[in-house]
Amino acid sequence: MQHRSEETRAKILAVAEGLFAQKGYDATGVADICTAATVSKGAFYHHFPAKQAVFQALLEGWLAQLDAQMQTAFARSVDVPSGLTAMAGETGPIFAGANSRSLIFLEFWMQASRQPDIWQIAVAPYHRYVDVFSGLIQKGIQEGSIRADVDPHSAAQAVIAIALGLFLQAFFDPQGEDWQQITQRAVRILVDGMARRAA
Amino acid sequence: MQHRSEETRAKILAVAEGLFAQKGYDATGVADICTAATVSKGAFYHHFPAKQAVFQALLEGWLAQLDAQMQTAFARSVDVPSGLTAMAGETGPIFAGANSRSLIFLEFWMQASRQPDIWQIAVAPYHRYVDVFSGLIQKGIQEGSIRADVDPHSAAQAVIAIALGLFLQAFFDPQGEDWQQITQRAVRILVDGMARRAA
Repeated sequence: MQHRSEETRAKILAVAEGLFAQKGYDATGVADICTAATVSKGAFYHHFPAKQAVFQALLEGWLAQLDAQMQTAFARSVDVPSGLTAMAGETGPIFAGANSRSLIFLEFWMQASRQPDIWQIAVAPYHRYVDVFSGLIQKGIQEGSIRADVDPHSAAQAVIAIALGLFLQAFFDPQGEDWQQITQRAVRILVDGMARRAA
Repeated sequence: MQHRSEETRAKILAVAEGLFAQKGYDATGVADICTAATVSKGAFYHHFPAKQAVFQALLEGWLAQLDAQMQTAFARSVDVPSGLTAMAGETGPIFAGANSRSLIFLEFWMQASRQPDIWQIAVAPYHRYVDVFSGLIQKGIQEGSIRADVDPHSAAQAVIAIALGLFLQAFFDPQGEDWQQITQRAVRILVDGMARRAA
């Protein structure tokens, strides 16, 4: 039973992601998800209290992938600048799904910005990543790979800006560019700007 | 008459911007704009063939402001890196309107992504700015202020990523941060990463 329940949950998530991307988050009802996933409303509400919980689970799944990639990239890098550069070199799969996912993100944030109760859920990952990258930049300063006059908080926001900004550009031009290569080059410029110069 | 017609157009734009931000682009009809602006439908359609033309005019107005700021910043700067840094130092007014404008942008892009005929209008400014910044980076390489191994196209996309990415972060956290200061610091890191090192 446990196994089957997990399968149902995974099916709801996969079907919802497709519908959100195709029809829009707002235009997709719980009933549409149930029909397309061939599950009962009872089964749906067993797993998710509301449609926004489906979005939250999708978001958490994507971010868990991202976190795993970050850990791998940093585990085999000698210092923070090489870790950031290594991460940039593995963004291909992220950009591959960027078009439909950007749409879902954009629409959810838009909706959330008009609903204070879900706004905190929508922006929580942002604040978490500011902390994560601030910590990494601080580590870089301590290990001597990043200049001591770099402000960790602003530098973290710059790293996140590069990521968000290229993700948005990939949405504008999904076919036209090698976004992983552009990300590598952009991150290299940013990292060079933070790095302690070789004497 | 000419003067009054201009006034009507400006009133429609101002009222539409407020309604788009408050109710959403999709939820705002031409009838709502006419009622709130106290103009007839005839007067509306005299100025704008459709609602999307109102968005386009708003977008063009904002970008014209941005272009004017860019020109001023570059006119009093000695080289491209200082021009980019000077621009970053004048982003306060942009961030002041970021919250409601981001919402309108996000929603319009989202809608446009599902309508191929208006998609080209929605992404045209993006392609224009890639060209503008590529040209500036090339100029910097020629004048010797930017390293010759920097790829102008990718560096332009990095500059735009910083701008778009910080704009989106300001939308997540409109009150919490001094976004102009963060932009200055982020652009300084990026510019340092491109700059030719002093010998």
